[in-house]
Amino acid sequence: MSTLPFSSSVYAARLDRAAALAADAGLDAIIVGPGPDLQYLVGVEGDTIERLTALVLGPGLAPTVVVPRMELAKVRSTAVGALGLRLADWVDGEKPYDLVADAIGTATRVGVSDALPALHVIPIGERLGVTLELATPVLRESRMVKDDAEIAELRRAGEAIDAVHRRVPEWLRAGRTEREVAADIAEAIVAEGHRTVEFVIVGSGPNGADPHHEVSDRVIQAGDIVVVDIGGAVPSGYNSDSTRTYAVGEPDPATAERIGVLVRAQQAAVDAARPGATAAEVDAAARDVLAAAGLGEAFLHRTGHGIGVSVHEEPYIAPGNDLVLREGMAFSIEPGIYFTGEWGARIEDIVVVTAEGCERLNVAPHTLTSV
Amino acid sequence: MSTLPFSSSVYAARLDRAAALAADAGLDAIIVGPGPDLQYLVGVEGDTIERLTALVLGPGLAPTVVVPRMELAKVRSTAVGALGLRLADWVDGEKPYDLVADAIGTATRVGVSDALPALHVIPIGERLGVTLELATPVLRESRMVKDDAEIAELRRAGEAIDAVHRRVPEWLRAGRTEREVAADIAEAIVAEGHRTVEFVIVGSGPNGADPHHEVSDRVIQAGDIVVVDIGGAVPSGYNSDSTRTYAVGEPDPATAERIGVLVRAQQAAVDAARPGATAAEVDAAARDVLAAAGLGEAFLHRTGHGIGVSVHEEPYIAPGNDLVLREGMAFSIEPGIYFTGEWGARIEDIVVVTAEGCERLNVAPHTLTSV
Repeated sequence: MSTLPFSSSVYAARLDRAAALAADAGLDAIIVGPGPDLQYLVGVEGDTIERLTALVLGPGLAPTVVVPRMELAKVRSTAVGALGLRLADWVDGEKPYDLVADAIGTATRVGVSDALPALHVIPIGERLGVTLELATPVLRESRMVKDDAEIAELRRAGEAIDAVHRRVPEWLRAGRTEREVAADIAEAIVAEGHRTVEFVIVGSGPNGADPHHEVSDRVIQAGDIVVVDIGGAVPSGYNSDSTRTYAVGEPDPATAERIGVLVRAQQAAVDAARPGATAAEVDAAARDVLAAAGLGEAFLHRTGHGIGVSVHEEPYIAPGNDLVLREGMAFSIEPGIYFTGEWGARIEDIVVVTAEGCERLNVAPHTLTSV
Repeated sequence: MSTLPFSSSVYAARLDRAAALAADAGLDAIIVGPGPDLQYLVGVEGDTIERLTALVLGPGLAPTVVVPRMELAKVRSTAVGALGLRLADWVDGEKPYDLVADAIGTATRVGVSDALPALHVIPIGERLGVTLELATPVLRESRMVKDDAEIAELRRAGEAIDAVHRRVPEWLRAGRTEREVAADIAEAIVAEGHRTVEFVIVGSGPNGADPHHEVSDRVIQAGDIVVVDIGGAVPSGYNSDSTRTYAVGEPDPATAERIGVLVRAQQAAVDAARPGATAAEVDAAARDVLAAAGLGEAFLHRTGHGIGVSVHEEPYIAPGNDLVLREGMAFSIEPGIYFTGEWGARIEDIVVVTAEGCERLNVAPHTLTSV
């Protein structure tokens, strides 16, 4: 993508803020490799592994991008070019870690981005002669609170994925395989306005009991409960992620009742999401409803995850996370219940914290939809 | 993919070999995160980032897989389950690094896999209280030399991508956009026997001068030179990767002559690939032909990269790499020439080193094909 989603002044402000946050954290420099942090800061996408691309920034440092010469054109088409950042290019056979060291100068505390692979982390640490730290706190703080333009993109993504969920009953029926249904959904994810399909989970019957099942050749049966968890990136790179649970035909009353509890648990967490609440409190709101109905053991995972230019990011809505929610934070609320060998269900919306509560970005019907 | 491409004894042997190589390297343990190393050793695919999945192995250690509980079913469906490896599972809110430390016990030298992200590298180093090293030498040695079953899979992948290149003239013509042509190619990559499309580069006219251009909405013109670099993974997870250069209509004689030099350069590198030669010598064989024709400056990258369960891996065929080639090593040979603002060309085959030379796995016509 050579068209930047935001103006170059937005990226300039993000870079300044990251450098200021690095200073607040006592870091002399941070090294940001390919991944969502780099996409957020300068619009460089992709995740080249073996050839180092890295943005070096920090208090008092001119931001520098270390880049393989063959990637120069691509990198120049991003905010790196628009802002005229310093480039330090290298070719195969040269060692890029010297360029990183040159860009940093003298430093005692250096942070690296979450996604930077060990392949580069270890030699950078050796070359700099320091024990590297995670720049996670700095970059999390930069990315976690979305501005209005970012929220508009998440809202656009939410509308696009809702449009797909509304069409799922066209494709989901007994006699078709999960894979066939998923192929139709994937096509619709693009047709409804995403540029990429990030994931399509169709978990029917016992497959729905595995939260990370993707798709299989299982033929969907009358009476199945089916988890459909789907998402993609809209052209700006911001992601959608929404789950609904469907019944093929009429579900039995005991199943429908349990899924009714799940819908209430999800609602309770949405109700708990507001400025000043902690991530753990939102998680507990869903967990408590399920536990009170005897379904606590069936809920195998955290309640949610942040979302933006990556599908999973801070804040994580999980037990033990005392992070205090603030206006502009965006995350999923997706409790689920799983019965091994039988069935599973999950309901997931993306929400954005507002001044007084939160805005749901997914509004397709939450209750069990019979198809 | 829940069907393992090889028998569980193959994975058992790979684990034993990796532990033995770790011992040879003086490492007490190695920690392998998601990525091609984990896929190679135990058949676990995917690259979950924020929740740690890791295989711990080493001399005298029972291999242990640290895994989020919600991934247990998926992990059990691989060689991890087939071989009954020890599992240490954790849930959101718990710290998986204690489980890694427990699996390792007392250790002073610990290696990590290339792909393990900083997010886990830094806290694992802190928890263990050691300076982590790269396990690259151990894992490279394990993966770099392919056995007969792996070569058969690479051969299958090569045949599948050759079949796609033979069909490119059906789709590549003036008036269509690069993106339209790429969509037809992507469909054919799957139709010809791959399970995934890993990349489709269609670089027409000036776009071909950027080695990392992917696709755009540029309309292909009569007279364009077009670089088509494509690949995917066959069901076993092994990859194809082949580039051919096409001319839309008759190329001008000067261009055709330069591409003729490129074909000779590629052939020279293929001729140089044999047991006992170094990676740098193979690189130089192509580079020297181009330099002798005054095209040395137009060749912007290394000559090739290894291939297997990842598209880019050891051995890298690059200047300065003194690695001595051995029978069973598989890599690309892909010199290219690039003229900014004008056009580019690249010719790429995968080869496997044999007892006396090398076998080309891509045999679609190498010369400039007019469409």
